[in-house]
Amino acid sequence: MKQVDAVAQSRFLRACRREPVDRTPIWLMRQAGRYMPEYRALRQKYSMLELIRTPELAAEVTLQPLEAFDLDAAILFSDILPILSPMGLQLSFAEGEGPQIANPVRTRQDVARLRAVPAVEGLSFVLRAIEILRPILDQRGIPLIGFSGAPFTLAAYAVEGRGTRDHLRVKGMMMADEASWRALMSLLADAVGDYLLAQVHAGAAAVQMFDSWAGVLAPDDYRDLVLPYSRRALEIVRRGAPDTPIIHFSTGTAGLLELFGALGADVIGVDWRIGLSDAWGRIGPSHALQGNLDPAVLLAPWEAVQPRVQRVLQEASGRPGHIFNLGHGILPGTPVENVRRLVEFVHGSRD
Amino acid sequence: MKQVDAVAQSRFLRACRREPVDRTPIWLMRQAGRYMPEYRALRQKYSMLELIRTPELAAEVTLQPLEAFDLDAAILFSDILPILSPMGLQLSFAEGEGPQIANPVRTRQDVARLRAVPAVEGLSFVLRAIEILRPILDQRGIPLIGFSGAPFTLAAYAVEGRGTRDHLRVKGMMMADEASWRALMSLLADAVGDYLLAQVHAGAAAVQMFDSWAGVLAPDDYRDLVLPYSRRALEIVRRGAPDTPIIHFSTGTAGLLELFGALGADVIGVDWRIGLSDAWGRIGPSHALQGNLDPAVLLAPWEAVQPRVQRVLQEASGRPGHIFNLGHGILPGTPVENVRRLVEFVHGSRD
Repeated sequence: MKQVDAVAQSRFLRACRREPVDRTPIWLMRQAGRYMPEYRALRQKYSMLELIRTPELAAEVTLQPLEAFDLDAAILFSDILPILSPMGLQLSFAEGEGPQIANPVRTRQDVARLRAVPAVEGLSFVLRAIEILRPILDQRGIPLIGFSGAPFTLAAYAVEGRGTRDHLRVKGMMMADEASWRALMSLLADAVGDYLLAQVHAGAAAVQMFDSWAGVLAPDDYRDLVLPYSRRALEIVRRGAPDTPIIHFSTGTAGLLELFGALGADVIGVDWRIGLSDAWGRIGPSHALQGNLDPAVLLAPWEAVQPRVQRVLQEASGRPGHIFNLGHGILPGTPVENVRRLVEFVHGSRD
Repeated sequence: MKQVDAVAQSRFLRACRREPVDRTPIWLMRQAGRYMPEYRALRQKYSMLELIRTPELAAEVTLQPLEAFDLDAAILFSDILPILSPMGLQLSFAEGEGPQIANPVRTRQDVARLRAVPAVEGLSFVLRAIEILRPILDQRGIPLIGFSGAPFTLAAYAVEGRGTRDHLRVKGMMMADEASWRALMSLLADAVGDYLLAQVHAGAAAVQMFDSWAGVLAPDDYRDLVLPYSRRALEIVRRGAPDTPIIHFSTGTAGLLELFGALGADVIGVDWRIGLSDAWGRIGPSHALQGNLDPAVLLAPWEAVQPRVQRVLQEASGRPGHIFNLGHGILPGTPVENVRRLVEFVHGSRD
C-alpha cells in the first residue's frame, strides 16, 4: 500500500491533477529509443516488433531510460498502432520506412469488414508487459503511462496505409463518405477506449492518447468529425477508471486548442509551435499542460538548450499542473548528456 | 491611365487595402498548374524550369487560369527559390522530387562565399515575364502578383539542400551558430527585398512573400531569429514602393499570428488549421486576411465543398479585407469543374 501511495503522490500524478509539486515533473516522449546506446544494443539482437511483442523485452526497454535518468514517469515501450491488428488490419513495420498496412480501409465494404473486438484480444503482450513493470515501478514510486493512438490518427494510418504528407485519402473519406467515416471512427473510438482501460486495469497509472495527425485538420472538421470520437474513447476510460489521469497529445494544433477543453482529458500535450502560456490561455485553467520543448533543441550545444528550457519553464511558472516534456518524440541523434542535463535542470528549477 | 485605374480599383487591390468590395475577391495559389489540362499540355513540351525561365512561356502559363476562370488576380508563374541562384547556390528541380541544392550552406565559410548581388542580376527572365504580362492584364483590369520565398524558407532550402520533415540542419545552424545564421539571414533579407521591389518596378501590382516553413518554429525562435529579417525584406519593398500591397504567407503558424502584426505586411495569408475569425482576432484589425480553404476540400464532390467554402466566407463576413484563397497551393488532382464552381460561388455571395 505504501508503494502505491508513493506512486499516487508522485510529482507526475500530482501535476496531472494540478496539485502543487516540489519540482516540475519531466518525462520524454520516446524516452526509450535509438538515442540510447543501451537501446541500440538490444536492437542489434531484436527487431522493433520483437521488442514490442515480447513482454519481458518491452519491460526491459521501458526501464532503460529510468536507469539512466531521474525521470518522473515511465511510458510503456510500444507503438500507437497495435490496436489496428486485432481489428483485422495487416500492420507491419518496414525497417526505416515506418508503419505500413497491407489492406488499407478505402470503402464502405472495407469498414464493414473490420472487427469490433474487445481490444484485449490479440494484445495480451501489452498487458503482460504492464503487469511485469508495475511492481518494479511501484517499488521506485514511478508511475507507468499506457497509451494508444487516437481514433483519427489510427484512421489516418488505416485509410492511407502509411504515413503521408497531405492525408488526402483520409480527408477524402471524411468529406465525401461521411457515413463510412463515422462507422470507422465509432469502431476505433470503442476499440481505443477499451484498449486504454485494459492498460489501466493491468497497472498503468495514467494513459496518453496520441492524436499525432490531428493538426492537419480545419477546426470545423475536427470539431464535427473527429472530436466526438476522441471524447467517446476517453469516456470509456473515465467511466471504467475515474481516478486515472488522461493525457491528450497532438502536434500542430495551435488553432484547435479552444476545442480541446471538450475532450474530457485531464492533461493536454502541446508542441513547441505555440507558447505554453498562450496555449494555456486558450485551453483554459481546468487542464494541466504537458510540453513543449522542440526536440530539435536537444541536438544543439547545452548553451543553446538551456535558455530554451528556461523559457518553457517560465511560460508555465506560477500555476500548478505543468509536466515538462518535448513537443514530440526525442530525436535519434540526441546526445545522452543533453538529456541528463535537461532532467537535472528541470528538477533544479523550483516552481 | 484608365486601365491602370481599373487595376488600382480592382476587387483584389481594394481588399488588400481593406476597402469595401462588391464581392469577395478570389485567386488560388498555384492557380496555374498541373490540375489544368492546358498546363499539362505545355509541360509535355517543356520542363518546369524552361517554363519559368522563358518569359513568353511563363507569361502564357500565368494567363491560363485567367482564361478558364473569373479570377481576381494573376500570379506570375515562377517559383519561390530562383533568388538563390544569383547568390551562388546551384539550384535544380529533379522531376517529382522538388528543388535540390547541390552546394548547401552548412558552415560560416559557406555563408561567407554567398554573393550579395543586386537581385535583378541573373533574374531578368522574371522581370521580362512581368513586363510582357502587365499591358495584357492592365487591359483586363487584373492585378499581377509578384513573389519570392521569405528569408527563413530560403535559408531552410539553402541549408538543408532540399525539403525535409524535421528541418534539423537549419534549426541547428540557427541555434548553435547564431552569428552565421544572422549573416545568412541578412544576406537573404536584402536579396528578397530587392527582388520583390524589382518585380514591382517591372509591373507587379502586389507582392507575396512565402514563408512556407515558418510553422516549424517555436514562437520565441521565430520572433528573435526570423521575424527581424522578414521585416527587413518587406521594409525594402515598402520604402521603394509605398503604395504596393504586401502579402505575407505561411502555413502551420496558428501559434505565431500575434507576432505577424510586426512584419510590416498589409495582408496576412493563413492556412485552414485555424478559423479565419479566430486568426483575425489574433493578428488584429489593421491587416487584411487571405485564405483559408484546405486544398484537400477541392478533391471532394461539390456537395462537400460548398458548405466548407460557405464557412470560410462566414468567418470573414462583416469586415472588409478578405481575399479568398486556399490555405496552400491547389492540388494536382483537383477537378477543374470544382475550381469553376468555387470561383462562381465566392463571387455569388456578397459580403
